[in-house]
Amino acid sequence: MLSKDEEKKISSAVIKRLPRYYRYLGELLENDIERISSKELSVRMDVTASQIRQDLNNFGGFGQQGYGYNVEYLYNEISKILGLEKTYNIIIVGAGNLGQALANYIDFEKSGFVVKGLFDVNPKIVGISVRGLEIQDIDNMEMYVKNKHIDIAVLTLPKQKAPKIANDLAEWGIKGIWNFAPTDLQLKDKSVTIENVHLSESLMTLSYRIKDRV
Amino acid sequence: MLSKDEEKKISSAVIKRLPRYYRYLGELLENDIERISSKELSVRMDVTASQIRQDLNNFGGFGQQGYGYNVEYLYNEISKILGLEKTYNIIIVGAGNLGQALANYIDFEKSGFVVKGLFDVNPKIVGISVRGLEIQDIDNMEMYVKNKHIDIAVLTLPKQKAPKIANDLAEWGIKGIWNFAPTDLQLKDKSVTIENVHLSESLMTLSYRIKDRV
Repeated sequence: MLSKDEEKKISSAVIKRLPRYYRYLGELLENDIERISSKELSVRMDVTASQIRQDLNNFGGFGQQGYGYNVEYLYNEISKILGLEKTYNIIIVGAGNLGQALANYIDFEKSGFVVKGLFDVNPKIVGISVRGLEIQDIDNMEMYVKNKHIDIAVLTLPKQKAPKIANDLAEWGIKGIWNFAPTDLQLKDKSVTIENVHLSESLMTLSYRIKDRV
Repeated sequence: MLSKDEEKKISSAVIKRLPRYYRYLGELLENDIERISSKELSVRMDVTASQIRQDLNNFGGFGQQGYGYNVEYLYNEISKILGLEKTYNIIIVGAGNLGQALANYIDFEKSGFVVKGLFDVNPKIVGISVRGLEIQDIDNMEMYVKNKHIDIAVLTLPKQKAPKIANDLAEWGIKGIWNFAPTDLQLKDKSVTIENVHLSESLMTLSYRIKDRV
């Protein structure tokens, strides 16, 4: 594996493909497959074999000529590259249906993302228990984030409210924001990493592809 | 705008950027901005101006030398390209938190995606009303899809159940599947378009970027 400095030059297109490799390798592991050639992997993943080799060479390779990849080793290495051997403390801001769905998503916890708290402004749902965690009033959030070493905030709240809360969270020391509000957040504090999820974009890709059959 | 035959050669990378252009142009419209140069648009969107020109040239251009783009015109043209001037009848399969969150997402309806039915296997939630629609037993789904001209099925159900239900839906005439089950669906019927959403992938991209600060 390369040093962090060398890693830094890696394009975001490569980074985006790593979780896919990770998912496919996980499925191979579940099926007790021990090794795989870049060609076989490429057929399964619908990318070219040379793309796979190029992507993995960014991190120092891992393959062996004529042998292919050791599935478990490669899975573990990609896990480390993605930072999945660490544990991330998470809060969910906005505990409506989407926030609760994410809190209940057990796969996230398996990958080291542990939901520590849920917050909402709605007094009707404050106090309700979701997976053993009581939804808290958003007024408690500042103290909570400052005292509990929260790493990531998941924003599942309206577009209008997201920018102010995101800037507050940044000030309180959060390191990453996983934003589901339908807007591209831009913070004053550039040290906070933002990952914007735009669900409607993938729905529009779908309509593009079926529009002539509807 | 080009004919469908010409459109077909357009790469999926371009298609994926179109909804982003659409969103940004929508925000410009909301702010009463009438025209914009590819350079200004590129700064806002963090892609190069030449990328924008290239992408839009795939559909015949739309820009005018020295004038830039007419925001409303470009917004409407991209809307047509994405198929958003049509109406899509949607069902949601799996009416848990995520299914209900998507059913309640009013922006989808504004773009022409109309939720017509929700289905679940869980008798405890069958009959509950979500945005005026009663959650139905999944046993009703076949007749419903066949009789009601359903175009798109949203799958918010466990990974294990998704492949069988997806193949059934394809047989019953569905045209597109928006899949939230954490697996890449592959159907026998290749005429059905599948858009897989992998939420965990974007979370892993986030952990990659913050891992050294945690």
